[in-house]
Amino acid sequence: MKQYSRRNILGLMGGVAAGGAIAGLVVPALAATAANTDKLGERFKQNGGDFSWKPHKLDPAVVAEVAHAGFWHKGYGCGYGVLYSIVGLMGEKHGAPYKDFPFTVMEFGKSGISEWGGTCGALLGAAAALALFYPRKERDAMIDELFRWYETTAFPLYKPKPGSTKVEGPLPASVSDSIICHISVARWCAASKFDARSTERSERCARITADVALKTLEILHAKMDGKFATAMKKSEVYEGCTAKGCHGENKKEWEHSGLKGQMDCAPCHSGSKATMDKRKDHP
Amino acid sequence: MKQYSRRNILGLMGGVAAGGAIAGLVVPALAATAANTDKLGERFKQNGGDFSWKPHKLDPAVVAEVAHAGFWHKGYGCGYGVLYSIVGLMGEKHGAPYKDFPFTVMEFGKSGISEWGGTCGALLGAAAALALFYPRKERDAMIDELFRWYETTAFPLYKPKPGSTKVEGPLPASVSDSIICHISVARWCAASKFDARSTERSERCARITADVALKTLEILHAKMDGKFATAMKKSEVYEGCTAKGCHGENKKEWEHSGLKGQMDCAPCHSGSKATMDKRKDHP
Repeated sequence: MKQYSRRNILGLMGGVAAGGAIAGLVVPALAATAANTDKLGERFKQNGGDFSWKPHKLDPAVVAEVAHAGFWHKGYGCGYGVLYSIVGLMGEKHGAPYKDFPFTVMEFGKSGISEWGGTCGALLGAAAALALFYPRKERDAMIDELFRWYETTAFPLYKPKPGSTKVEGPLPASVSDSIICHISVARWCAASKFDARSTERSERCARITADVALKTLEILHAKMDGKFATAMKKSEVYEGCTAKGCHGENKKEWEHSGLKGQMDCAPCHSGSKATMDKRKDHP
Repeated sequence: MKQYSRRNILGLMGGVAAGGAIAGLVVPALAATAANTDKLGERFKQNGGDFSWKPHKLDPAVVAEVAHAGFWHKGYGCGYGVLYSIVGLMGEKHGAPYKDFPFTVMEFGKSGISEWGGTCGALLGAAAALALFYPRKERDAMIDELFRWYETTAFPLYKPKPGSTKVEGPLPASVSDSIICHISVARWCAASKFDARSTERSERCARITADVALKTLEILHAKMDGKFATAMKKSEVYEGCTAKGCHGENKKEWEHSGLKGQMDCAPCHSGSKATMDKRKDHP
């Protein structure tokens, strides 16, 4: 059972400048248990059970084509495209429960969630698809593999069939370095010289929708065959900052405590031209 | 119909250092239309129609309590907590289709998607809930309101009932400045001096799960009443960089073209201590 240390109590009482009154602090009820914090557990019982859907194998060529088409379908975008290309195709062949899923829910992933530029929606669609089949304990390593592949791969890779899209022929490829839509798109725009609002940029993302769907399917098939193994290594910078360094160990100073996440640290913590003070002496 | 400019063609042919061969460029089939790029549209027809679920009003006090409990339930986390507290509660009262949704799919949101620290999972759960009811044209303004509120609010605000959680009493609050889990958690840890892996940090996120669910419900109820109006303003920095500045206009140089997203620019583009080169002269 976790105890409050003196340091934490002091930090809690005195170290907060950002807001929030700490009046009336109650030392935690250390007798509280997982059982009584989950007393509402009965209500969370799910029809069919948690993570109960069974995956089926799919034809990669069809998955890629449908993911790309799903991106363009009514402009539903990357999250919808990836999710439909996997779960929707299972529904076309195997019916319920797959076919009854309200796939358009995943339209929220477009442009990093309704145009906010957060996590790439294609990755959100992939994570949602995998989470229908596997709980965290099994899924996290699959997500790690997919996300690290996304950070390090020069894409788009997918070649759409002639006549199937608005911008045909090869497009420039770039390594995104990040799972964040804003960074992924900005790096491609820098490499390609296309505007982030161009049709070419949209087509780039449509193709990445196919790329992510294919990689997700590859991971899913390996998992189904009992052959899934992590191939991607963590970012060297991340390893330096965590496993070999300070931020992954539970040192006494909070600055050296755990950080949240596994994203490559470099894009935002390298003092790069992009992250310099753009409000100071900026043309 | 979009045309390739000479600049874009030149950029496409010569400006790509990051990888990807551009051999065999085909000037796009400008005759391609939305219709023939959506020739697979028939397959995307959805049971019940797109965005067809109807929202119901809920008791805010119950939503907050269930969101907080959902976070702790089997450790399913923030995305699950928010989604269940809205859609699950509709299912408890109104049955199908709500009750048949496989809610555990949203466990993928935990810690910014399977511990990656990307977009906050509570916001992903909220975006998913809203996307069951509203397509982008109606939903985007609701998401803008929620996300901007998240960037600017000092939380956690929710006060759990005594005996309902592992860490009782007030917790420090901080403004996250960002919808990204990694940043949101890091800023709270800096303000509170708690380790990102502490139970207090988990409780902070459980309470934010309730906070986000409540704000989402407030927006949803206003929308249902035909009274939803945007109250939050965009970040002043973002406005400076876009609406009043360069990056929101379609200038000729790609560097001054559109950027992807609406996140506050400041956390990553201010040359702050946190974003300085941590691999150079770093203790």
